[in-house]
Amino acid sequence: MFLGMSDRVKPLVEQVRAMIRDEVVPLEHEYEAEIGKAGDRFAMTKRQIDILEGLKAKAKAKNMWNFWLTGSEQGYGLTTVEYAYLAEEMGRSHLAAETFNCSAPDTGNMEVIERYGTQAQKDRWLKPLLAGEIRSAYLMTEPSVASSDATNVSLSAVLDGDEWVMNGEKWWASGAGDPRCKIYITMCVTDPDADKHKRHSQIFVPAGTKGITVLRPMQVFGNDDAPHGHMHIRFENVRVPKDNLILGRGRGFEVAQGRLGPGRIHHCMRAIGQAERALELMCRRAATREAFGKKLMDLGANFDIIAECRMEIEMARLLCLKAAWMMDNVSKVEAAHWISQIKVVAPRMALKVVDESMQMHGGAGVSQDTPLAKMWTGLRTLRFADGPDAVHRRQVARTELKRYVNRGPEP
Amino acid sequence: MFLGMSDRVKPLVEQVRAMIRDEVVPLEHEYEAEIGKAGDRFAMTKRQIDILEGLKAKAKAKNMWNFWLTGSEQGYGLTTVEYAYLAEEMGRSHLAAETFNCSAPDTGNMEVIERYGTQAQKDRWLKPLLAGEIRSAYLMTEPSVASSDATNVSLSAVLDGDEWVMNGEKWWASGAGDPRCKIYITMCVTDPDADKHKRHSQIFVPAGTKGITVLRPMQVFGNDDAPHGHMHIRFENVRVPKDNLILGRGRGFEVAQGRLGPGRIHHCMRAIGQAERALELMCRRAATREAFGKKLMDLGANFDIIAECRMEIEMARLLCLKAAWMMDNVSKVEAAHWISQIKVVAPRMALKVVDESMQMHGGAGVSQDTPLAKMWTGLRTLRFADGPDAVHRRQVARTELKRYVNRGPEP
Amino acid sequence: MFLGMSDRVKPLVEQVRAMIRDEVVPLEHEYEAEIGKAGDRFAMTKRQIDILEGLKAKAKAKNMWNFWLTGSEQGYGLTTVEYAYLAEEMGRSHLAAETFNCSAPDTGNMEVIERYGTQAQKDRWLKPLLAGEIRSAYLMTEPSVASSDATNVSLSAVLDGDEWVMNGEKWWASGAGDPRCKIYITMCVTDPDADKHKRHSQIFVPAGTKGITVLRPMQVFGNDDAPHGHMHIRFENVRVPKDNLILGRGRGFEVAQGRLGPGRIHHCMRAIGQAERALELMCRRAATREAFGKKLMDLGANFDIIAECRMEIEMARLLCLKAAWMMDNVSKVEAAHWISQIKVVAPRMALKVVDESMQMHGGAGVSQDTPLAKMWTGLRTLRFADGPDAVHRRQVARTELKRYVNRGPEP
Amino acid sequence: MFLGMSDRVKPLVEQVRAMIRDEVVPLEHEYEAEIGKAGDRFAMTKRQIDILEGLKAKAKAKNMWNFWLTGSEQGYGLTTVEYAYLAEEMGRSHLAAETFNCSAPDTGNMEVIERYGTQAQKDRWLKPLLAGEIRSAYLMTEPSVASSDATNVSLSAVLDGDEWVMNGEKWWASGAGDPRCKIYITMCVTDPDADKHKRHSQIFVPAGTKGITVLRPMQVFGNDDAPHGHMHIRFENVRVPKDNLILGRGRGFEVAQGRLGPGRIHHCMRAIGQAERALELMCRRAATREAFGKKLMDLGANFDIIAECRMEIEMARLLCLKAAWMMDNVSKVEAAHWISQIKVVAPRMALKVVDESMQMHGGAGVSQDTPLAKMWTGLRTLRFADGPDAVHRRQVARTELKRYVNRGPEP
Repeated sequence: MFLGMSDRVKPLVEQVRAMIRDEVVPLEHEYEAEIGKAGDRFAMTKRQIDILEGLKAKAKAKNMWNFWLTGSEQGYGLTTVEYAYLAEEMGRSHLAAETFNCSAPDTGNMEVIERYGTQAQKDRWLKPLLAGEIRSAYLMTEPSVASSDATNVSLSAVLDGDEWVMNGEKWWASGAGDPRCKIYITMCVTDPDADKHKRHSQIFVPAGTKGITVLRPMQVFGNDDAPHGHMHIRFENVRVPKDNLILGRGRGFEVAQGRLGPGRIHHCMRAIGQAERALELMCRRAATREAFGKKLMDLGANFDIIAECRMEIEMARLLCLKAAWMMDNVSKVEAAHWISQIKVVAPRMALKVVDESMQMHGGAGVSQDTPLAKMWTGLRTLRFADGPDAVHRRQVARTELKRYVNRGPEP
Repeated sequence: MFLGMSDRVKPLVEQVRAMIRDEVVPLEHEYEAEIGKAGDRFAMTKRQIDILEGLKAKAKAKNMWNFWLTGSEQGYGLTTVEYAYLAEEMGRSHLAAETFNCSAPDTGNMEVIERYGTQAQKDRWLKPLLAGEIRSAYLMTEPSVASSDATNVSLSAVLDGDEWVMNGEKWWASGAGDPRCKIYITMCVTDPDADKHKRHSQIFVPAGTKGITVLRPMQVFGNDDAPHGHMHIRFENVRVPKDNLILGRGRGFEVAQGRLGPGRIHHCMRAIGQAERALELMCRRAATREAFGKKLMDLGANFDIIAECRMEIEMARLLCLKAAWMMDNVSKVEAAHWISQIKVVAPRMALKVVDESMQMHGGAGVSQDTPLAKMWTGLRTLRFADGPDAVHRRQVARTELKRYVNRGPEP
Repeated sequence: MFLGMSDRVKPLVEQVRAMIRDEVVPLEHEYEAEIGKAGDRFAMTKRQIDILEGLKAKAKAKNMWNFWLTGSEQGYGLTTVEYAYLAEEMGRSHLAAETFNCSAPDTGNMEVIERYGTQAQKDRWLKPLLAGEIRSAYLMTEPSVASSDATNVSLSAVLDGDEWVMNGEKWWASGAGDPRCKIYITMCVTDPDADKHKRHSQIFVPAGTKGITVLRPMQVFGNDDAPHGHMHIRFENVRVPKDNLILGRGRGFEVAQGRLGPGRIHHCMRAIGQAERALELMCRRAATREAFGKKLMDLGANFDIIAECRMEIEMARLLCLKAAWMMDNVSKVEAAHWISQIKVVAPRMALKVVDESMQMHGGAGVSQDTPLAKMWTGLRTLRFADGPDAVHRRQVARTELKRYVNRGPEP
Repeated sequence: MFLGMSDRVKPLVEQVRAMIRDEVVPLEHEYEAEIGKAGDRFAMTKRQIDILEGLKAKAKAKNMWNFWLTGSEQGYGLTTVEYAYLAEEMGRSHLAAETFNCSAPDTGNMEVIERYGTQAQKDRWLKPLLAGEIRSAYLMTEPSVASSDATNVSLSAVLDGDEWVMNGEKWWASGAGDPRCKIYITMCVTDPDADKHKRHSQIFVPAGTKGITVLRPMQVFGNDDAPHGHMHIRFENVRVPKDNLILGRGRGFEVAQGRLGPGRIHHCMRAIGQAERALELMCRRAATREAFGKKLMDLGANFDIIAECRMEIEMARLLCLKAAWMMDNVSKVEAAHWISQIKVVAPRMALKVVDESMQMHGGAGVSQDTPLAKMWTGLRTLRFADGPDAVHRRQVARTELKRYVNRGPEP
């Protein structure tokens, strides 16, 4: 179980770190300031697009692109463990993942198409996604049901001749606000009378298809996260070709499972990067700011707080690396146990570190003057996105208990 | 130590509860929707003003007004314990406190003027504040220093003939965004060479005085809290009459201490009301929503989570009532020990309850569809507003240890 | 809701505090040292008995006796709130409760007899218990079943002519090790075919009845708690008169419920007294001991730790007093909700305070040189004695949710 | 950073696990039952010695011996990472470590002699220790000073001709109760006027030297841990030869630091093994015991509790392995940072897991019927043995902050 940085990935980590520090972070504020200048917060200004596409062009030119394609013959063919070190770096800036074409939900969507798509589907959707020419969304969660139990998902798709006719509502369609978002992968019910886990399918639905209404952006603690957005979308008799079906009727859960593993762990990797940046900010603050005649670091419990953050980050990172290693080395089912663990641990840890960092900063910590508040709200959604903590804990406990059920007390 | 609801306050609680439920809450959404319609988010629309002033007029007409004037001959002459029950009710809606002219920072500012103001100052500022005709702000915190140690406050006021000439910056001036805000009570340095606790004074500065620039609204987790606002303000050679000084030169801390006690506990009372509403929302959700074939309440640890929230609310409420009783019955110095306790406990408890409630709601919990996210961000600022947790804990420990210093081990 | 110390109880608290400080605590070490000197750790030496009976005689002579008889015409007729202040004092020494004839399990057993006993039963058992002449045990828990669900209790009692014939095993019979323990109140199954809650009865069984074998003392973290003891007892064809039945066949749960409320809250009151003593010890240590050139109190997070302990004690005490007030003022069913709350809160709080105090003491904290380790192990058992935390939390949540089931979301 | 089980250590882990399961654990109860049968609890019966020496002889015969000699040319030459897997197994039974001659404090003492001893010292003390023929103790902590700051250590050693004359008191001398314990490594002050860190030396003192009085065993939560024992020892004019000095005058801290690193991490490794056994017991209990008509595992928060335990164990193990890897691959100073981290994390985690397991077991959990209570008390002492948590956290924070002091805010 080699969890260190491999010789192969070490220079990549350096390159990615340098580019984020020298080229991405310096543009953060300008990018932020552009939001809304086009009138509609979800219409991007030319400058906004230039910033993003400029960064992407630079990264692509240096072949710093699509690192997430792990275990693949395309690109670098990194292991998941190797990618973890890169993703952590990308966590430090909210523009970084897209710069390297490694951002959610595109990476997960690309995995779906690569793994389950037909050649035609790949040509149409995967190619431009891999090239960073378009973006995509994944439509899963619905407002009227507890989507933590995905069998509740109810948007219906009925075959009418050569077309699926789709009706229902989705929300938290992340990235669907972006004008460059061209395709939705949509979980829906195609076979309502089948067994519970055979009712659902996934279908490609091009953004802008007739019958689609983007009702509103969902707000996260008051923020619309424009222009990315987490959109609430209505489908009214939306028609798409029969061939837009992915993998097969009733195989929606199979597709979902294939998609969710990597997506979950990528979120965790980036969360660790955020925690590192938050701890760095906390330490810098503690080492410079003064109150009551002392540096903050020399007051009260601040040494203890900093030590606890360091220890929790280390443990979460190691667990994340182990989960990554499992993805590289054991079956998907076995790895799921580890992904569930890190999915609970990483966001919670990062929330704690960011919260402590905010507290060390006082008012500045919750304001626009530090990246901490934005980090916190994003991380908070991770505690239920891709499955709430409770569901993942249940999964972990089940695996644990399976070894003992019907075995009796200790021999 | 009578901590129950007195016979006198019981009907008032009923009235306040009913008015909030029947008249205030139903206008919340409309009020929210108005924000920004005037173009500038800090310019209120006529409808916005009508909503607020209409509610105030109704409350005033029923004599449901200025309840916060505890231990006073004016108004109801409630005890702090009695007021606690009313303030808790007001915590349930963010429009409620203003409806009854009980909102921060006005109540604290009015206390200052009533207690320390000259008759002329009272006539000019207290009267319209008591009548709800104007609003006010309290300018304390500064961006360039750790204001948790208030001796760091540095905005300077130099006497030049009959005028104070003021220079410096303040931020987190809550309420200063409101166009109805007409007066700032401003902590400043008038005697830089005096003893550390004798350097500061408080001065009335009318909003809009020449030399004042409102630089920007501070954001709280991305929200500007318009039109109330937490403003960042620059003073450049701002001139105000000599008589605008409160109480006397070098007595700024004396004034601050008188102001902060009640303000701190009022925040806590309302925090408890917010926690109650969050728990109610959590229970309603748990009792209706279904996943995995069960009501949410019947899944996993949800019974335990709900029980813990109930117990923590009860304990925090009792501690808050005891602190209120102390304010009514012991010296300010002794009561401070209790206020520090509840100032640490109440926001933390409420944050926890709201966080659990958000988690039970999934995506809806962090969105605009429930009041939870707004509650959370507001409560989060309470952990450093009016003194960060660490400072209050230090205060509590000091009182505790004083009994044992130089006493040796147990006899 | 008056939760303060009443004028009536104030002098009693002073008296009790003084007697514990001046007469009970000074004998603690000598009493401890006697244990085991008689050879059998459960055979008390003359000196041991003299210490206990001497203290009792003194207390009785001063009429400091049977304070626990709340709401009764006998004795002081204290309210439960008043008694709470006395019980807290008694928590400070492990010999104190018995000194005043206020110790578990006797108080609970006396309540049972007073409330449900026949005159003959009262004459035989209650009188000597009230007089402190004998002691008693309560036999509930069994080794072979999860007794947290009391319907599992299985020791059988079969009527054979005028006698009950009893067979089965009990453990954790606290106090049954004491040679002065003369009577067991025993929960058993008399009507196995009845409804689940009508199968059990409670029967008086004199200690030493033929067929009873005391198998062993249960150890608590390695301690046998001699001579009190928590005994594991076997019943083999134990015969007692038919009239030893309490209240009636199948009414075992009714009796149990009447018994448990007061017993639970008394434990909590004493736990708070223990926490106070632990905090005092921690502060004395922190204020005297030096390391790294400073007093311990001035190192690291120690101020914060002390402050947290103070705040948690205050909150738990207030909740305990509120639960006591409920016992005095509302129905038993309503009060149960509050007793469940404090039953979860008080032991957990006290464990935390004692644990922090141990940590401040280093090695001494877990050793025989401070009372902390003994406190900790005793308190730890309270987290499942008289119902584990999980069962009480369930109770609290149930009451909470009842208000919302079938009510839908917030109106 | 390879943290997995190497091919070399895999079969050893299997062998150790099998021997513990098949030969050590089955003798645990008999061994326990022997304690005290010789009258004096610290005098071992023949059977007791036979059990221990029998196990040792078997292990030695199979060459399962002195695994702890990491990075050494003697024995297996395992890495610390490899040894971690073995030590974890040994954590599962309290007789296991001694069986393989891997128990504290002998391993630490042997390291000291191997690293710093003269050939004569090695011949006299190291040889029989490596052979398992004698045992040893390490005398550091003193009752009258805060020994968490080791510069406080005050037992004096004055050179008088060719002899050191030693006076003072030590306590918590673990293992000094064992009649087979023949040598004490003793930290003392030889140069009281030197610089603070140059005052102390370490000296070999044979057990039983004239002037030594073993005052009493310290109790840990009431247990004397006989026959191992944690002894309180007085030195009155104890004379030992000048050559018993280790390494050199004033080099006591140098010796201590060399000793403590491995000792601390070995404790942590075993703590993880204990946690694993506690979790296993909890799961077995949860999967078999019934209450309220359900298996315990299907009640309340038990799934969540089990999942949290699994996740915390995994993280602590990974951190422990990383600290071990650091010991193998970086300087002692750098590794210290990691050892401090795991020293805080592992005991805390294990205490939590054992506590939850106890709660799942109810009364049985704190009693002699499970190994949990004994585990808990042992683990609790680890939170201050070899440095209290606070000191280790301080160490971790210092390393963290060093990177930022005088660096200012984020560039």
